[in-house]
Amino acid sequence: LPPLFSRLTENKIHFWDKQKKDAKKIIHSIKVGISLVLISLLYLLDPLYEQVGENAMWAIMTVVVTFEFSAGATLGKGLNRGIGTILGGGLGCIAAVLAQNLGGVANSILIGASVFIFGTIATYFRLFPSVKMRYDYGVMIFILTFNLVVVSGVRTEDQKVWEIARERLLTIVMGFVVCICVSLLIFPLWASDELHDSIVSRFQHLANSLQGCMEEYVKFASKKENKSGASFSVCKSLLDSKSKDEVLANFAKWEPCRHGKFGFFYPWEKYLKIGEVLRELAAITLALGGCLQSSETAMKVEPVSQSIQMESSEAIGSGIVWILRELEESMEKKRKCEAHISEKLKTVREEISLVISTSKMAAIDNMDALAVASFVFLLKKVVEKVE
Amino acid sequence: LPPLFSRLTENKIHFWDKQKKDAKKIIHSIKVGISLVLISLLYLLDPLYEQVGENAMWAIMTVVVTFEFSAGATLGKGLNRGIGTILGGGLGCIAAVLAQNLGGVANSILIGASVFIFGTIATYFRLFPSVKMRYDYGVMIFILTFNLVVVSGVRTEDQKVWEIARERLLTIVMGFVVCICVSLLIFPLWASDELHDSIVSRFQHLANSLQGCMEEYVKFASKKENKSGASFSVCKSLLDSKSKDEVLANFAKWEPCRHGKFGFFYPWEKYLKIGEVLRELAAITLALGGCLQSSETAMKVEPVSQSIQMESSEAIGSGIVWILRELEESMEKKRKCEAHISEKLKTVREEISLVISTSKMAAIDNMDALAVASFVFLLKKVVEKVE
Repeated sequence: LPPLFSRLTENKIHFWDKQKKDAKKIIHSIKVGISLVLISLLYLLDPLYEQVGENAMWAIMTVVVTFEFSAGATLGKGLNRGIGTILGGGLGCIAAVLAQNLGGVANSILIGASVFIFGTIATYFRLFPSVKMRYDYGVMIFILTFNLVVVSGVRTEDQKVWEIARERLLTIVMGFVVCICVSLLIFPLWASDELHDSIVSRFQHLANSLQGCMEEYVKFASKKENKSGASFSVCKSLLDSKSKDEVLANFAKWEPCRHGKFGFFYPWEKYLKIGEVLRELAAITLALGGCLQSSETAMKVEPVSQSIQMESSEAIGSGIVWILRELEESMEKKRKCEAHISEKLKTVREEISLVISTSKMAAIDNMDALAVASFVFLLKKVVEKVE
Repeated sequence: LPPLFSRLTENKIHFWDKQKKDAKKIIHSIKVGISLVLISLLYLLDPLYEQVGENAMWAIMTVVVTFEFSAGATLGKGLNRGIGTILGGGLGCIAAVLAQNLGGVANSILIGASVFIFGTIATYFRLFPSVKMRYDYGVMIFILTFNLVVVSGVRTEDQKVWEIARERLLTIVMGFVVCICVSLLIFPLWASDELHDSIVSRFQHLANSLQGCMEEYVKFASKKENKSGASFSVCKSLLDSKSKDEVLANFAKWEPCRHGKFGFFYPWEKYLKIGEVLRELAAITLALGGCLQSSETAMKVEPVSQSIQMESSEAIGSGIVWILRELEESMEKKRKCEAHISEKLKTVREEISLVISTSKMAAIDNMDALAVASFVFLLKKVVEKVE
C-alpha cells in the first residue's frame, strides 16, 4: 500500500514537527520569564536600585519589547533600539540646547517645528520597503527618543538633559545585555536553522505531492476510478511562504555569531532564490493536479494508447521525485551536489523528449512534466550556487 | 499593435498607482508630524503641563507607537494598547498590594514569582497564531504594564500606585484620542479601501496576463517565432499576496465606522476567499505560460491541425479574459453579478468540451484552459456570495 504508507509517514512527520514547534514555544516563553525576573532585580535589590533609580523602567521596557522568538530577531531589534536611541537622543539634546539658548516663545516654536520636521521625515523614511524591512523599529525608536528628549528639555535644566539621556541609554543597554545573554545562552533558537529546515523540508513536501500526483494518475488511468484523493494543501501553503522566508532571512542576517555552522556572509539571498524556484515548482504541481482532476472525464473519452503514455509518465514522475529527494538530502548535509544527480536529470530529460516525439497523445501531462523538469534543472543550478 | 498597446496601458496604470501610493505616504507622514506636535503641547503649554506632569511622556509614546498607516491599524493598535494597559495595570496593582501586605523578603519573592508566571504564560499566549494576528500588541503591553506596576509598587506607597496607574492611563487615552482624531479626520487612509482596490485590480492583472499568454500563443503558432515576450512577474507577485491580504483584512475589521460605504459586519473573509481563488488562477496561468515556453520546440514538430486548435483556443482565451474583466467591473461597482456573465461562462464551457471531443491534439492547452474555466466558475460563485 504505497499511497497509504506515504500518507502515514507524512502525518507522522507532521506530528513530530508540531511537537518540536510546541517545545520551542514553551522554551521561548520560559526564557522571557527568566529575563523579566532578572531585569526586575534592578528594582527589587536595594544596591542596584540606588544605582539606576526610576530609570530601571527603561530596562524592563527594553526586555519586553526586544525579546523575540529567534536569536537573530532579538539581536536585530536590540541593535535597532540602541542605535535609534543614541541618534534620537543625541539630536534631541542638540535641539533642546539650541532651543534653550533662544528662550521665551521662540523656544517653544523651535521645538514644535523640529518635532514636526523630524517626525514627518523619519515617518516617510520608515515607509520605504528596504528600510521597513530591517530598520523599521530603529526609526520608530529614533522618533520616540528625539521627541521625549527635545520636549522634556523644556522642563529640565541644561545639564540634567544630558544626564537623563546617559542614564536611560545605560539602562537600555542593561536590558539589551540581559536579553542577549538569555537568548543566546539558554537553548538558543536560531532563525537561520529555521530557514534552512523549512527550505529543506519543502523539497520533501514537493516530492511527496508530486508522488501523490503520479499515484493518482496511475490509479485512474488504469482503473478508471473517479476519486481524487491527493491533497494539494501542502503545495498551496508552499505558495504562501514568501513573506515568511523573507522575514526569516532578514533575522538570519543578524546572526553573525553562528559562523561555526553557517559561516560569516553566508548567502541567505540564495535561500530566497531557492524558495522562489520551489514556489514556481509548487505552482506547476498545483496546475498539474488541477489538470488531472479536470481531465478525469476527458480520459474516459480517449483510452487509446494510455498504457504507453502511463508508463513513460510514471518513469518521468518518479525520476523527478527521486531528484527532489536527492536534492533535499544534499541540502540537509550541505555537501556539494553530486554528479549523479545531474546524470539522472539528463536521463529524465532524454526520456521526456523521447516520449514527446513518439507518442503525441502523451502531450497533456508531459508538457507539464517538461516544465517541471526544466524547473528542476533550474533548481539544481541554484543549489550548486549555494554549495 | 495590440500587444504593445496592452503593455503601454499597463505601464500607465502602474505609473499612476505609484503616484497615488507616494501621495498617500506623504499624507501619512504629515499626519504623524501634526499629531506629534499636538501631543507635544502637553509639555509646551504651562497649564496643560501642570495637569499631567511627567506622565505626558506616555502620551507621546502612545502617539509614536500606535499611529499606523491605515485608520483600521491605528484603531486596532490603540484599542489593544488601552485594553492591555487596563488589564495589566489592574492585575499589577492587585499583585503589588498583596505583596505589600506580606512585607520583607516574602514580598520580593512573591513579586518575582508573579513576574515570572505572568510573563511566561502571556508570552506563550502571544505565540498562538490567532492571538498573534489580532492581539499581539495588546498582550505585549499587558506584560509591560503588569511588570512596571508590580515592580514599582515595591518602591512607592500603597495609594500612590493607584494614582500613578490612573494618571498613566489618562495620558495614554489622551495620546490615543489625538491619534484617532488626526487619523480619521485629516485625509483618512482606509485599509478596507486598499483591500478592495487590490482585489479588484488583481482581476485586471490576471486578465492582462492571460491575454498576454494568448497573444504569445497565437504569435508563435502562426509565425513560428521563437521569442517569448510575455512577462509573468505580475502573476508571480499575485502568488505572494496572501499575507498582505490577511493583514489588510485584519485592519479592515477594525474599521466599523465605515458602515456608510461597506456596512457593519461586511464579509471581509469573503475577500480572503476571492484572493485564494485568484492565487490558484494565477498559479495555473503561470503554469500555462511555462507550458507555452517549453512547448515552443515541441510545436515545431507537430504543425498539423494547428489552425483549428489555435482558433478555438483563442476563442476560449478571449472568453475567459472577457469574463475576468466583467467580474472586475461588477466588483468595483459592487453590483450583483449579472446573468450574462454566467451565460458567457456556459458558452465557453461548451466550446471547451466541443474542442476536446473534436480535436484530440488540442489537449495541451485546453486541459489548462478547462482548469482555468472551472476556476473562473468557482470564482463567480464566490463573487455572488459577496454581493
